[in-house]
Amino acid sequence: MVSNKKVLFKKVPTAYPVIGEHIEVIDTEFDLDAQLADGEFIIKTLVLSVDPYMRGRMRDASAKSYSPAFTLDQPMNGHAVAIVEKSNSSVYKVGDYLYGMGDFVNYAKMSEAEAKARGMEVRPDIPTSGLPITNYVGVLGMPGATAYVGLELVGKPKAGETIYVSAASGAVGQLVGQLAKTQGLRVVGSAGSDEKVAHLKDIGFDAAFNYKTEDTDAKLTEFCPDGVDIYFENVGGAMLETTINHMNLFGRIIACGMISQYNVGNELYGVRNLIQVVAKRLILQGFIVSDHPELDAPFREQVTKALVEGKFKYLDDVVDGIENTPEALIDVLQGKNFGKKAVRVADP
Amino acid sequence: MVSNKKVLFKKVPTAYPVIGEHIEVIDTEFDLDAQLADGEFIIKTLVLSVDPYMRGRMRDASAKSYSPAFTLDQPMNGHAVAIVEKSNSSVYKVGDYLYGMGDFVNYAKMSEAEAKARGMEVRPDIPTSGLPITNYVGVLGMPGATAYVGLELVGKPKAGETIYVSAASGAVGQLVGQLAKTQGLRVVGSAGSDEKVAHLKDIGFDAAFNYKTEDTDAKLTEFCPDGVDIYFENVGGAMLETTINHMNLFGRIIACGMISQYNVGNELYGVRNLIQVVAKRLILQGFIVSDHPELDAPFREQVTKALVEGKFKYLDDVVDGIENTPEALIDVLQGKNFGKKAVRVADP
Repeated sequence: MVSNKKVLFKKVPTAYPVIGEHIEVIDTEFDLDAQLADGEFIIKTLVLSVDPYMRGRMRDASAKSYSPAFTLDQPMNGHAVAIVEKSNSSVYKVGDYLYGMGDFVNYAKMSEAEAKARGMEVRPDIPTSGLPITNYVGVLGMPGATAYVGLELVGKPKAGETIYVSAASGAVGQLVGQLAKTQGLRVVGSAGSDEKVAHLKDIGFDAAFNYKTEDTDAKLTEFCPDGVDIYFENVGGAMLETTINHMNLFGRIIACGMISQYNVGNELYGVRNLIQVVAKRLILQGFIVSDHPELDAPFREQVTKALVEGKFKYLDDVVDGIENTPEALIDVLQGKNFGKKAVRVADP
Repeated sequence: MVSNKKVLFKKVPTAYPVIGEHIEVIDTEFDLDAQLADGEFIIKTLVLSVDPYMRGRMRDASAKSYSPAFTLDQPMNGHAVAIVEKSNSSVYKVGDYLYGMGDFVNYAKMSEAEAKARGMEVRPDIPTSGLPITNYVGVLGMPGATAYVGLELVGKPKAGETIYVSAASGAVGQLVGQLAKTQGLRVVGSAGSDEKVAHLKDIGFDAAFNYKTEDTDAKLTEFCPDGVDIYFENVGGAMLETTINHMNLFGRIIACGMISQYNVGNELYGVRNLIQVVAKRLILQGFIVSDHPELDAPFREQVTKALVEGKFKYLDDVVDGIENTPEALIDVLQGKNFGKKAVRVADP
């Protein structure tokens, strides 16, 4: 028997989740020597991703949304990298690295059908690329793909345009800025600390500001003198309203997320200037990365190459130990992460 | 000398314009026997269009927008049908019917260059189609083209989908509904009186309701049981917020106008549920009909044919006399028009 910690969803929060009340870590045991039926295998979790969208999954299961609600008293789950420890499957072999939706547990037994339902892919590139495994749930995982898909699908960037990225030092924003630079855009970002702002300049943003200590409207006027053609929207609320005032004719607003609105209960911010959508012929378009699997291959190829060649930089904010997953998630929701937050659960 | 009334822009309003304060009609004289330089000609206005977007032109000229501000103490202008009374031009001949941007005056002298700048087209179809001249500033004019362009460009309707049209009995909405019916959609509309609602049912809307006496949320639940795939947005504010709650995944919101927000000064309505744009992958897209001249020909062909064959019905709300133009415009801004408001200035 080995220790098998599980991160359970315990209660639907109305504002920020609280450890022990809405999320709880329990310790159980797992039998690594259990019999495996035909096609079954055991995975060991290596890395877990914690992402803002998970807040939306902490809801009553009767409310529909794009990603399923977490089940009360069951492990939460998300994008993860795992390794096959034991196997009675010809598809998932011992030593294979898998990427897909994994439960927040140390060990799990799985059938091939279940693995397929969780989108578990065997990824031979993970152990061979030389890149940190955490990259595979960040810049090369769902958040990275989100940056790529949003920019291509909605942003349709043209050289010479200006893009503004909010929450720019986060898991998605860092890559958005660097992808946009490769396409010849002026890239401006905002983040919530001076340290984050310095990082944005390090990774190639043309300008960046601390939205907590500076006035967003004044900084957009200063840093986007020709207006904003593309807004990569991760924040929502007042940030969206202010940015709309700076959008150029035919501007595109990539509605990726609105983290300012996730933990405010019914105190949602009312955006008052949508009339500009008409006058400026703006597009405000939402998207979900999983709708666009056709972009996975070009995304992975381009970004892996740029990382291996050192052309892209990407900051991970890694915490060790599955028991620290709840705090890591809450940190992300409160903007306390510095870079892409990931939990390193075990070494291969 | 003949009488030549002019409708002047006198002052920028902050809320609804007031006759005598913001708009004034003056009586002047015009010399029909004046000498015409080479290429000059005289037009007589037959029909003037008054449209909600004109409120946006009653602004300080320093504020940029998609259509130019009216000039203080000068005649207002808009889409009009006129006839050439006298001519020293080989392009614009006596008896020609013209459609384009005309000043709110009875008579005007014009050069070919000025006529071109105003988009004045010679339209031989106007006197020969058998359709009322007012149609050419309504269902066959800018408002009709707006319906067509919005639906095609942003709406991208598919048979079996549900479209909801606000301000549905207005100049644009009436045609939106009928165009959508030809494409096999379920068409639901709202308007501001029981008489308007009855008209919507007359012209083929599957369902319609009076948003002033009924609860929009309840009526959308009742009339759009499968949700709303396309929202043709003419109203904005609370109507937009309520409708977003009913939008289906991948829904399109055609941002054509937001008349509820034009005359409220700084009391703009804050839309609080834009997070649904992400979760539902909505598109909210503004457009201006004049950006899409390439759609003029198919629009005119399809709609003229349907009107001549009696397949489309379209209600004009015609007032006689140029001196009644200010009141007609204010009526439109207050929703007091019943159908497309037009001013019949003179007979041919």
